[in-house]
Amino acid sequence: MTTTLAVRYTAARTLTTGPADTAPPGPGLVELAPAYVGICGTDLHIFHGDMDARVKAPAVIGHEMSGTVVRLGPGVEGFAPGDPVTVMPLRWDDTCPACLRGHRHVCQNLDFIGIDSPGAMQQRWTVPAATLIPLPRALPLDHAALVEPTAVAVHDVGRAGMRDGERVVVVGGGPVGVLIALVAQAAGAEVRVVEPSAHRRRLADRLGLGTWDAVADVPGLVADWTDGAGADVAFEVSGAEAGVQTAVDVLGVRGRLCLVAIHPRPRPVNLHRFFWRELTLIGARLYDRGDFETAVRLVADGTIPAAQLISKVVPLAEAPSAFETLEAGGDVMKVLLDCTDSASEGVA
Amino acid sequence: MTTTLAVRYTAARTLTTGPADTAPPGPGLVELAPAYVGICGTDLHIFHGDMDARVKAPAVIGHEMSGTVVRLGPGVEGFAPGDPVTVMPLRWDDTCPACLRGHRHVCQNLDFIGIDSPGAMQQRWTVPAATLIPLPRALPLDHAALVEPTAVAVHDVGRAGMRDGERVVVVGGGPVGVLIALVAQAAGAEVRVVEPSAHRRRLADRLGLGTWDAVADVPGLVADWTDGAGADVAFEVSGAEAGVQTAVDVLGVRGRLCLVAIHPRPRPVNLHRFFWRELTLIGARLYDRGDFETAVRLVADGTIPAAQLISKVVPLAEAPSAFETLEAGGDVMKVLLDCTDSASEGVA
Repeated sequence: MTTTLAVRYTAARTLTTGPADTAPPGPGLVELAPAYVGICGTDLHIFHGDMDARVKAPAVIGHEMSGTVVRLGPGVEGFAPGDPVTVMPLRWDDTCPACLRGHRHVCQNLDFIGIDSPGAMQQRWTVPAATLIPLPRALPLDHAALVEPTAVAVHDVGRAGMRDGERVVVVGGGPVGVLIALVAQAAGAEVRVVEPSAHRRRLADRLGLGTWDAVADVPGLVADWTDGAGADVAFEVSGAEAGVQTAVDVLGVRGRLCLVAIHPRPRPVNLHRFFWRELTLIGARLYDRGDFETAVRLVADGTIPAAQLISKVVPLAEAPSAFETLEAGGDVMKVLLDCTDSASEGVA
Repeated sequence: MTTTLAVRYTAARTLTTGPADTAPPGPGLVELAPAYVGICGTDLHIFHGDMDARVKAPAVIGHEMSGTVVRLGPGVEGFAPGDPVTVMPLRWDDTCPACLRGHRHVCQNLDFIGIDSPGAMQQRWTVPAATLIPLPRALPLDHAALVEPTAVAVHDVGRAGMRDGERVVVVGGGPVGVLIALVAQAAGAEVRVVEPSAHRRRLADRLGLGTWDAVADVPGLVADWTDGAGADVAFEVSGAEAGVQTAVDVLGVRGRLCLVAIHPRPRPVNLHRFFWRELTLIGARLYDRGDFETAVRLVADGTIPAAQLISKVVPLAEAPSAFETLEAGGDVMKVLLDCTDSASEGVA
């Protein structure tokens, strides 16, 4: 038994830090030492108490991570202690209708590791070997914590069927929106990001993305930009009712709206415009292994400028205050928790 | 000049019958003698006064028709007087962004003949030669009046990307819903039609289509039918808010919802389910020439059992009372107006 530090969600707006016992990994499992764990919008929803029906407190959460292999359980091959890895945090049942049709990432009984089962915000984390994605040794581990959200972006751009030269509007310039914009731009699109936060717009501008304030007449701007044709693709990443409306209103004939954000309540949608312009709405969720492998490449080759997207790195033990700061909003993009022993020394 | 009968929309809930003067067709135009004209849901919307912003009274409406060529304008080739034809009632501008991208049927300045310009509810009708679709001589002209709505169904099934063996739910069992169900079934789908009217369900049953009452637990029935997988495709043809909800709720992972009906107001849509199951919503409007030619074949070869879908044929002069009857609802599917001279003799 080793005793290490873990952060636990215990009740709405309450995270506690405390020791965790780790046991040797069982068959097919691997024990990791998480290095960096990103705080995701979903983690904030959990912190908020919105997902208590699904997350059974006390629960260790977190699923955007990088780390190294510590120990291999019986039967695991292909990895060695010290190997840098990230985790594709999905376990599917291989028996439901979605799995049988080959769509395992949307398994009808999906176990999303970090929500439905223990996550990465701890110093030792045991996961199935099948979830591991090897990382190049040259890739800094803090940058590698962006692989998971980049895999989301890769999946979304793929679902939208994006083609070279298309005009793309990304509604919502948070971490996932900016990653989608970067992936789409790298794939040959001309991109505009619609975002209310001046801080986030400035960051997107610095990354070479065109931006518009969400309060502008965005459909009018798109009409000017496209000579009246409308955009080819819109990504709805805001989660807001107004964001849905913008994403619909900017599209040209046969335009595609890729729905990325979570909308917990039904939203009024202008279906007449879907009919009139023969638009398509495409739901996009998570990723598959191919998306993850592409994401590793894009982070490693600098297509994703990870250093510029990471606003702040805080020690794991300071997770509670980091969540409170993020809840309060403010001028941040991606915040990482540093789980390495050195960072947590003295606080565990 | 020949003087013949025409039916005109003059104001909300008011149609008048009266003489129309016809002049020889100009260059590129053809004068037709409409034989049968179907009354479409759109015609009822116009009658209701819902489309007064678009339809400038007094206006001859009607766009589901069959007839014969009377006279050819200068420069028209390939047709001769007496030829049986139907009309694809679309004129596009060939210059807007939609046309330039090859989607002329959703031209941004589309002239829909019978709405935006004079329609077929008259004994002589002059249209561009380019809109004519030849009909086989063996096809009865009353049956041929179903070609236009069948072309809608062909287009919708094509937009949905239907594949052999798929399970399909059609929400709304009026004329277009039943035609979609028949076209989908002919293409190899297993189909269920959801419809509140017992009369329309009985008709669909007689045509060999499975039906469910709209008040049933349709998602539960679909779950049983598909062993929990959900339907592959749903067509929303009801135009009702509840119909949208049913169409979303029945779909399995990666299911496609083809949106056929007109929803004048925004509808609440469960976008979370689009995300969660990676659903796709596909707007479908009108048709192209290929759809029309396929529709001619399907009506001519009996795939569309036209005789069973035509509830009633009334003389053109009785259009006003036919519209009033349809407005009042009742046990009808498709009602045709008979424009031939013999039918109208004595009433003109």
